[in-house]
Amino acid sequence: MNKASRGLFFEDFSLGQVLYHATPRTITEADVSLYIALTGSRFSLFCNQEFAQQLGYSKQPIDNVLAFQIAFGKTVNDISLNAVANLGYAEVEFLETVYVGDTISVASEVIGLKENSNGKTGIVYVHSKAMNQQGHQVISWKRWVMVHKRQEGMQNTFAVEPQLSSQVAFDNLSIPQTLNMSAYDERLSGESYRMKSYQSGEWIDHIDGLTIDDSEHTMATKLYQNNAKVHFNQHQMSSSKHQKRLVYGGHIISLCRALSHNGLANAQWLAAINGGAHLNPSFAGDTIYAATRVMEVQELGAGIGAMRLRTLGYKNNSWQELKPQLDRANQEKSRLPSDVVLDLDYTVLIPN
Amino acid sequence: MNKASRGLFFEDFSLGQVLYHATPRTITEADVSLYIALTGSRFSLFCNQEFAQQLGYSKQPIDNVLAFQIAFGKTVNDISLNAVANLGYAEVEFLETVYVGDTISVASEVIGLKENSNGKTGIVYVHSKAMNQQGHQVISWKRWVMVHKRQEGMQNTFAVEPQLSSQVAFDNLSIPQTLNMSAYDERLSGESYRMKSYQSGEWIDHIDGLTIDDSEHTMATKLYQNNAKVHFNQHQMSSSKHQKRLVYGGHIISLCRALSHNGLANAQWLAAINGGAHLNPSFAGDTIYAATRVMEVQELGAGIGAMRLRTLGYKNNSWQELKPQLDRANQEKSRLPSDVVLDLDYTVLIPN
Amino acid sequence: MNKASRGLFFEDFSLGQVLYHATPRTITEADVSLYIALTGSRFSLFCNQEFAQQLGYSKQPIDNVLAFQIAFGKTVNDISLNAVANLGYAEVEFLETVYVGDTISVASEVIGLKENSNGKTGIVYVHSKAMNQQGHQVISWKRWVMVHKRQEGMQNTFAVEPQLSSQVAFDNLSIPQTLNMSAYDERLSGESYRMKSYQSGEWIDHIDGLTIDDSEHTMATKLYQNNAKVHFNQHQMSSSKHQKRLVYGGHIISLCRALSHNGLANAQWLAAINGGAHLNPSFAGDTIYAATRVMEVQELGAGIGAMRLRTLGYKNNSWQELKPQLDRANQEKSRLPSDVVLDLDYTVLIPN
Repeated sequence: MNKASRGLFFEDFSLGQVLYHATPRTITEADVSLYIALTGSRFSLFCNQEFAQQLGYSKQPIDNVLAFQIAFGKTVNDISLNAVANLGYAEVEFLETVYVGDTISVASEVIGLKENSNGKTGIVYVHSKAMNQQGHQVISWKRWVMVHKRQEGMQNTFAVEPQLSSQVAFDNLSIPQTLNMSAYDERLSGESYRMKSYQSGEWIDHIDGLTIDDSEHTMATKLYQNNAKVHFNQHQMSSSKHQKRLVYGGHIISLCRALSHNGLANAQWLAAINGGAHLNPSFAGDTIYAATRVMEVQELGAGIGAMRLRTLGYKNNSWQELKPQLDRANQEKSRLPSDVVLDLDYTVLIPN
Repeated sequence: MNKASRGLFFEDFSLGQVLYHATPRTITEADVSLYIALTGSRFSLFCNQEFAQQLGYSKQPIDNVLAFQIAFGKTVNDISLNAVANLGYAEVEFLETVYVGDTISVASEVIGLKENSNGKTGIVYVHSKAMNQQGHQVISWKRWVMVHKRQEGMQNTFAVEPQLSSQVAFDNLSIPQTLNMSAYDERLSGESYRMKSYQSGEWIDHIDGLTIDDSEHTMATKLYQNNAKVHFNQHQMSSSKHQKRLVYGGHIISLCRALSHNGLANAQWLAAINGGAHLNPSFAGDTIYAATRVMEVQELGAGIGAMRLRTLGYKNNSWQELKPQLDRANQEKSRLPSDVVLDLDYTVLIPN
Repeated sequence: MNKASRGLFFEDFSLGQVLYHATPRTITEADVSLYIALTGSRFSLFCNQEFAQQLGYSKQPIDNVLAFQIAFGKTVNDISLNAVANLGYAEVEFLETVYVGDTISVASEVIGLKENSNGKTGIVYVHSKAMNQQGHQVISWKRWVMVHKRQEGMQNTFAVEPQLSSQVAFDNLSIPQTLNMSAYDERLSGESYRMKSYQSGEWIDHIDGLTIDDSEHTMATKLYQNNAKVHFNQHQMSSSKHQKRLVYGGHIISLCRALSHNGLANAQWLAAINGGAHLNPSFAGDTIYAATRVMEVQELGAGIGAMRLRTLGYKNNSWQELKPQLDRANQEKSRLPSDVVLDLDYTVLIPN
């Protein structure tokens, strides 16, 4: 029998099963620089040690999106190597700060299973938890993926679907203990907009576009040790529907978050992802843009504000053309235009 | 009003205005390795800690070109986001050594303004200063860029153009205090040529060529957090004159400096850039070559020599074909051939 | 005379000559992260500090393949800048562990010379030794390359060919002194197969494929400061036989080793390369696969096992199609199929 693994199929999952994912990873300063080179991120908290110290951090904190990418990468080999589609995320909570030097390990519990009526695939719901080397939980998230069955046919008569919250409530956000906004310097971060400058319902067109190239998205995905073959194997993907490799959806999240700096430069800390979905695939050559709607704004005390944001990532289009289409889709409760690739609902911390 | 910025236009600049650029950046060992991976640089002082110690450095010094790229990157969002062209550099002085761990912040003063007669653009002259976390000035430079006007038309009747020196005089060079050439080991650096081996007027054909690929030049530019859209947005650039993204001119400087190692391996320390211009754009797929003319050679004492060099970067051509064209252009005082992309006049320190 | 070097030609080598290669290199954490981003490597010993400590390492050890790439890169400028082909490796021994922070310098002795009857090229055999900053030998290897002559014609009447062992004997392997397998945790490494699970003659199809892109292989090669022009200069290579840049053969070794993690996740330590040959060139766009035959398995005591492996790297093909062709080639003692790019015979350490 061949010792290499083809990953798990729908039949290999059972309710309550806990998977301890391999290859825990120590995060270094180099991951931080590579992340900047791969995404163009400019949030000051993660590239300026003096700024981080002014906000109360004695060590260099890791961007939560980078920490999530590395933690998520650990789960791929077990959960989504045979995924048809990564359907969604919910209840992504950043519980403790991840620092340079931390080693992140991840385990996932199967919290839901549902066969599709075609008999070929099923949906697996998992609750994943990332720990640091001290055994503290640093990230917790739920996601669901459509997974191939090993053998066609229906197995079971019932489905278990977990109840997922549509939001990590503002009251339940984990505020980094060290975070101190009193010395926050907007000249360093690049914009003067604090929480009070934003209004519910307001849209921000982040203006800039980033074109994805082959080496960049595959390097990012390899850096996270995410080994899903759809991103890497052109020889096989050339006979797939799109005839090319798919860009890892997480990389699109990173690009959109990096683009959002223009208009949200003070939204330094991603505190939670309430929900997210990859609506369409992206490919090398696509130019990614982002726009954000401010959903809700709330003061948390101690100079800290929280904002719930909805960022749409879209490609090869202009905001002027896309916006009316979005409004129409909203009114008609129809699907978003096909050049929208990401719909991400998340909560950030920002000075008051 | 959209909170994302489209950058400054000509009308937004005024004489004497000081712009404090956002996103100061802590430089790490990772930036050093990435710089090697992106440019192929082989100067020993920046990749060999033992060698750096032999030359008197207790900590790892950062290649001045890398430090300049990062410092320059800070200025783009304010100065050149709407630049039509980066017209030139002058009086680039490297005043103090930048080390791994230093945080670099940059401010620029507007020192000249001049409208173009077309009424559409103007030239902005700035004097930029990069500081480390101790408030010491580490780099000082002047540059001028052609910037779009927000509205067409002439505004003013006078122009202010600064007097710019054509050279940082040898006597005014900042010699790193720690620099000690007495234990310089040419076996480690790779060549036996010291200052005395070079003669004024001598040309060095650096022989090797480096082909630029998309991910490489965009990764370098993102690493420097330079967000000028001409480098990143293929969707928009496809309707521009060249129909593709432009390679960041600074990356061409880095490539030419890296290529110059073959023939100038002991010219470890870039002490000043006297002047520089990007004569033509470069694109992914271009192969960059470099040749250097030794302009002036002078002993500075303590075993240290200075050489003023003029490095031409050119593309997709051979030195045998280009050299006669250069000579002809020189005689006729006409423009350099169109495959010349960079004309850089700078001063290096080299063992005597 | 132009000061830039065109490298050495066959006539420049003499038997017993020792070449001290320039540009010793300090290896940093950043090289480790870049290596992961460029190859997708997932061996736990090199990305998980906690795991390394459990195996007895007080400092972060460097993957022997990465250390070899950097050491090998030093030799290119002297040995193989004018190589027609890198013919083979033998007796590659990893003598001491290389750690983050070590500075590696390399010297090579010419141990064989042989002219080819065409009068245009000759074969140079070298024995290269890499040292750390304490002067300890860390890697020793022999390789032979076909090098251009400066001038056509036969020089000499005799050839000196060194006797090369076909294997670094299990008894002569250097076991890292610190290596302690007693606390080895297979949940962290990702597979349960220890030495006893493998059988001589067994094949492992590593399943996954990695497509090579331009920036990725050139960035890896530049990271190693390997300046062989066939990898970098599209302008010149466009008039070569294949009309494109060749991927550095060492990068193929790294990719195959990274791919071999699926089925050999516990083979953490590459202890020796017995022999290796690059059978065919690879180009950007190729998808690399790997399969490994277990050749020999032996217990070394103290919970450590050794396995001699033969990994074949191949491109743009499936194992199902390739395997019967390999078997036929074996029976007929004919050449391996042309989509095989690498044939590597090496020895790993693995928990018992």
